[in-house]
Amino acid sequence: MNASPRIITLTTDFGTSDAYVGIMKGVILRINPNVQIVDLTHAIPPQDIYEAAFSIGAAHSYFPKGTIHIIVVDPGVGSDRRAIVSRTGGAFFVCPDNGVLSYLLQSVKNEGGQPIDSVAIQNSAYFLPEVSNTFHGRDIFSPVAAHLSLGVSLDDIGPPVQTLVQLPIQVPELTDGTLTGQIVKIDRFGNAITNISETAIARLKSASTGGTSTYEIRVGSVRLQRFNRAYAESGIGKPLAIIGSSGLLEIAINAGNAKEGLGIKWGDPVVVQRFD
Amino acid sequence: MNASPRIITLTTDFGTSDAYVGIMKGVILRINPNVQIVDLTHAIPPQDIYEAAFSIGAAHSYFPKGTIHIIVVDPGVGSDRRAIVSRTGGAFFVCPDNGVLSYLLQSVKNEGGQPIDSVAIQNSAYFLPEVSNTFHGRDIFSPVAAHLSLGVSLDDIGPPVQTLVQLPIQVPELTDGTLTGQIVKIDRFGNAITNISETAIARLKSASTGGTSTYEIRVGSVRLQRFNRAYAESGIGKPLAIIGSSGLLEIAINAGNAKEGLGIKWGDPVVVQRFD
Amino acid sequence: MNASPRIITLTTDFGTSDAYVGIMKGVILRINPNVQIVDLTHAIPPQDIYEAAFSIGAAHSYFPKGTIHIIVVDPGVGSDRRAIVSRTGGAFFVCPDNGVLSYLLQSVKNEGGQPIDSVAIQNSAYFLPEVSNTFHGRDIFSPVAAHLSLGVSLDDIGPPVQTLVQLPIQVPELTDGTLTGQIVKIDRFGNAITNISETAIARLKSASTGGTSTYEIRVGSVRLQRFNRAYAESGIGKPLAIIGSSGLLEIAINAGNAKEGLGIKWGDPVVVQRFD
Repeated sequence: MNASPRIITLTTDFGTSDAYVGIMKGVILRINPNVQIVDLTHAIPPQDIYEAAFSIGAAHSYFPKGTIHIIVVDPGVGSDRRAIVSRTGGAFFVCPDNGVLSYLLQSVKNEGGQPIDSVAIQNSAYFLPEVSNTFHGRDIFSPVAAHLSLGVSLDDIGPPVQTLVQLPIQVPELTDGTLTGQIVKIDRFGNAITNISETAIARLKSASTGGTSTYEIRVGSVRLQRFNRAYAESGIGKPLAIIGSSGLLEIAINAGNAKEGLGIKWGDPVVVQRFD
Repeated sequence: MNASPRIITLTTDFGTSDAYVGIMKGVILRINPNVQIVDLTHAIPPQDIYEAAFSIGAAHSYFPKGTIHIIVVDPGVGSDRRAIVSRTGGAFFVCPDNGVLSYLLQSVKNEGGQPIDSVAIQNSAYFLPEVSNTFHGRDIFSPVAAHLSLGVSLDDIGPPVQTLVQLPIQVPELTDGTLTGQIVKIDRFGNAITNISETAIARLKSASTGGTSTYEIRVGSVRLQRFNRAYAESGIGKPLAIIGSSGLLEIAINAGNAKEGLGIKWGDPVVVQRFD
Repeated sequence: MNASPRIITLTTDFGTSDAYVGIMKGVILRINPNVQIVDLTHAIPPQDIYEAAFSIGAAHSYFPKGTIHIIVVDPGVGSDRRAIVSRTGGAFFVCPDNGVLSYLLQSVKNEGGQPIDSVAIQNSAYFLPEVSNTFHGRDIFSPVAAHLSLGVSLDDIGPPVQTLVQLPIQVPELTDGTLTGQIVKIDRFGNAITNISETAIARLKSASTGGTSTYEIRVGSVRLQRFNRAYAESGIGKPLAIIGSSGLLEIAINAGNAKEGLGIKWGDPVVVQRFD
C-alpha cells in the first residue's frame, strides 16, 4: 500500500485574479482531500491552445508516475467539442480534445512510441450534479480527475477514442546545410525558445563534410556565430544562442530580455546555417 | 477518526510579488503542519472589499465541510475595526468585520437561512506573541485559523457577535417587465458578470402574458436579443449574453474581451426587458 | 516519530506564466511525494538578487523548524559561481552563492549569532541525471532540497564553505541626532520600506537630552512630524510613517500608494531627525 498522495496538476488560462482556480481545487479536494495539487500555470493567454500545449509538453515528464494533469484552455466549452482523458507512460491528461496535447503526442512519437489510451469523458456519474455550459473545468474536468485519483478506471469514464485533434505543429526543416525553424515560445525572461532541438542541430553537424565547419544562427536582424554553453559566456546585454533547458535552441540576451532587446516574437523564423 | 487534512483557503489583496502570503502560510504550518492551504486569490485590488466579498461568496460552497476561509482585505488594520470568525454550513470564515462576508450572508439568507454564528476575535492566546498594527493577516487571522483547524472552539476565540457589517449590495429590480441590475464583477477574460440571477430572469419570464414574448438585454450601447447557451453559439468576436458559471447573467464576447471590446465597466447598469 | 510533512519553500524570479516553477515542484515530488511545497514568491524581478535577499530575509523566521528554503535568482547559472546549502537555526537554504542570503546573514549576526554551517553543492548523486547549463533550479537545487527533506546530511552534499558572497547592504547611520537610511523595498501596496529599524529609532530617541524632543521624517519632498501606530490614524490619501510588519520604518499613504503618490523609489535616502 502506498501512502503517498496522488498529484493533480492544473494548467489553465483562468489567471489567478478570479476565484476560478480556487473553486476547481475545492471541487477536487471535496472528492479526494488527500490529493496534492500543483499549479503548472494559470497564465496561458486566453484561449491560446498552442501555449497550453507547449507548457504541458515541457513539464509533464518531470512529475511522478500516476500524476494526473488537468488542462483547461477551452474556447469551445459548451459546444460539441469532445472532452477526453488520455493515459501515456503512467500519466493521465484530462482536457478538451482541442489540440492541447499536441506537443505531448509529438514527443511520445519521437521517443519511439509509448502507447496512448484515450477515452471520451461521458459518464456523468463523475461530474458535478449540475453541469454549466461555461465552466467545465469546475463541473467536469476537476471532478473526473479527482475520481481518477481515487482509482476509477479509464473504461469507466467513457468509450475509447482513436484519434485526437492535433495542432499543425511545425517541425524544423533541414536542407542543404540549413536548418529552418521558428520561435514557438517566449518565456518570462524574454528568452525566445525555438522548435529546433539539440538533436536537429546534432544532425546538421553530423552532415558536415569536414572538421572545420562554422555556423551562423539568424533571427530577425541578429546574426550569431556560436552556440553558448551558458548565458554568462556572453557579455552583459549581448545576444546569444544556447540550448535551453527543454533541449531546444533558445535566443537570449545575457542578463537582459531578448524579446524586447531584439524585437523578436512568436512565430518568427530562425535559421541555423552550416558553412563547410 | 478522520485522517484527511483540514483545508484553509486564503483570499487577500497582498499580491504574490511580496513574501506576505508566504509568511502567512509559514505561520499556519508552524501551528498545524498537516493543514492543506489553498489560494483563492491574492489579486483582490488593494482595499477592495466588494471584490473580496464577491470572490468568497462565489467560491466557498465548493469546498469540503470544515474548510476554514481566511479573508484579509483590511484597510482598517490597526484601527478599532472588529476581527471575527463566522461559522455557517460547516465552514469557517476568519476576517475583519468590514463587509467581506456580505455576498456570503446574502446567499445564506436567499437559501432560506442556515444559522450563522459569529464571534469577535479576542483571545490573544491564539495570536502570535507580538501583534503588529499593520499585518493582522500574519499576527491574528492566520494563527487563529490554524488553531481552529486543530479543533479550538468558537467560544474559545471570543464573545458572540450579533450583527456583522454589511455592504450595500444592490439587488436587481423587476418592474413592468423590465429587470434592472448592474455589472458587479469583471473577470480575467473581460467577461462582465451582473447581479441578475438565473432565478430573477425566470421570474421575469414567468410573468409573461403569452408564449410569444421576446427579450432584449441592454448594457452601454450593446443590444442583445437572446440568451446564449454557450459562448461558441455566437460568432467569433460577437457580443453575447449568457448565464455564467455562478448562475448570474454575464455579458461576454465569444473568444474575445467584452470589457475592452464593449467599453463596459464595474457598476454599469444592465437591463433585461420583456416584450409581450 | 514525527509524521508531519517537511516544508520546502520556493523563491524565484521565474514568474508563474511559464511552467518552470511547476517543473521544479514535479522534480521535488518525484523524490519526496510527502513534502509540502510553499511559494514564497516567484515575482522577484529578473536577476534581482537584492530583492530576493530581502524576501527570504523577511520570511524565513515564520516557518517551522526544519523548513528547507530554495532561492533561485541566478544570473550566473552555468558559470563557475558556487551553489550552496546553508543551515542556521534549524532551517536550510539551498541557493547560488551570489548574495541572496545577505539579509539572512545580517539578521543572524544582529541577533547575536546562531552558527551558520554551509557546504558547496557538489555531490551529483543528488542531482538530476542530466544537468543543463541554464536551469539549475530544476536540475540541482530542487533535487538537493528534496533529498535534504528525506534526511540526507549536509556533509553528504559537499565540502564545507567558510565565507559566503555578501551584498553591500547599507546600514543606517546615526550622527548628531540624525538617522540616515534608504528605501530598500517597495511592496505591492506601494509602501516604501526603509532599512531603518525600530531598534535604530529607539536608539535615536534614547539619545534625546530631554523629554520634549520632536522628530521629522524626510524622504523626497515629504516631511512627516510623527510616527503613526496604524495606517488609519492618518486621513485617507495622507502620507504617513509607521513601523511596518518587519519592524522597519515604512513610508505609506493611508488607503493609497506611496510609491506613485509621493514619487519615491528604491534606494531613495530617508532621514529621521531629532530636535531637542
